[in-house]
Amino acid sequence: MKDKISDAVVKRLPVYLRYLEDLLNEGVEHISSNELSGRIGFTASQIRQDLNNFGGFGQQGYGYNVEGLHREIKGILGLDHEYAMVIVGLGNLGRAIANHTKYYKMGFPIIGMFDVNPDLIGMRINDIEVQDSKNLPEFLRTHHVDIGIITTTKEAAQMIADQMVEGGVKGIWNFAPLDLKVPKRVPVGSVHVTDTLNSLVYHIVHPDQRS
Amino acid sequence: MKDKISDAVVKRLPVYLRYLEDLLNEGVEHISSNELSGRIGFTASQIRQDLNNFGGFGQQGYGYNVEGLHREIKGILGLDHEYAMVIVGLGNLGRAIANHTKYYKMGFPIIGMFDVNPDLIGMRINDIEVQDSKNLPEFLRTHHVDIGIITTTKEAAQMIADQMVEGGVKGIWNFAPLDLKVPKRVPVGSVHVTDTLNSLVYHIVHPDQRS
Repeated sequence: MKDKISDAVVKRLPVYLRYLEDLLNEGVEHISSNELSGRIGFTASQIRQDLNNFGGFGQQGYGYNVEGLHREIKGILGLDHEYAMVIVGLGNLGRAIANHTKYYKMGFPIIGMFDVNPDLIGMRINDIEVQDSKNLPEFLRTHHVDIGIITTTKEAAQMIADQMVEGGVKGIWNFAPLDLKVPKRVPVGSVHVTDTLNSLVYHIVHPDQRS
Repeated sequence: MKDKISDAVVKRLPVYLRYLEDLLNEGVEHISSNELSGRIGFTASQIRQDLNNFGGFGQQGYGYNVEGLHREIKGILGLDHEYAMVIVGLGNLGRAIANHTKYYKMGFPIIGMFDVNPDLIGMRINDIEVQDSKNLPEFLRTHHVDIGIITTTKEAAQMIADQMVEGGVKGIWNFAPLDLKVPKRVPVGSVHVTDTLNSLVYHIVHPDQRS
């Protein structure tokens, strides 16, 4: 692998993975960069350039081996083993994520659920009992947890992130509308849902500003 | 306003807006680019450069007027009036969005809800009755709808997008794990939730690749 893969390429890898999964399900064995381009919408040259970052799995006149490429990208993305997760905040969005059984199948089991709301504590979601958030530090001390999911209010998010960092999580998946301050060694993947709505509206009211 | 604002700036505007809302709530009247930088984490020179795109609202030695800047960015983002929305797909994620009353307060009322699941049709969420998805085209013909939200399966998403475009929506907010094919005049804001988890894991397993 080259020294440094650009963030833009890293963001496109999951997109490739989604399309390769479709191809696998359709029983397609080989695909050219042109055919992939027709499906994904990226240009064929963009695709070739992206996949060359990883040494290139394509062969001239033969295309990419779908199964091999799928396996390689899964490996590069680190999706070839399991990541234990906890989730803090079981409001509407938290419950939607906790109920999304696909994550369990993908190798992302949620092993702990936490909330401050007495109405939610004790509730069971996918066989996990929601605990009081004050139990989080103790839970992190006594369980191996790779990823902490934050679906709390904006006000609670930084404190929960601090506890997760202290508790040794390897990464934080953040849905709170806040840019968390954490040490560099703990990567944060943020999903600012409402920001995407705001950007969409910008493009609706400024049709001249579309790329 | 300058001729073309880069996508990167457009994506940062909702971030500025979130922090300015906090400042308004705290009663802060003026803020310097340095103070803003301390909160948001962008550099002060980045902030000055971004806000200069819109003519610059700051005054030397005085900083930005929080209320004025907030109002201007709301206006630029088109958030100074209402957008009627419909949502198709009331699974876990769809229900989380439909239940998020903040969108109603922000000026994004959801006026129609649709699903194919007989168990969900007839259910009421925030006083709106979930209808059969087959009613969507008729609903779009008879109601003014600005934004269509897609929270269906990947398989259904393109067909629903086609119906939304045909029905005259001005933009699509897409949560299905699919890159929709729509005419250029209809902007799409996509939230690929699982992709962000995959990218996070990449950064966990490749600590040397962090920016």
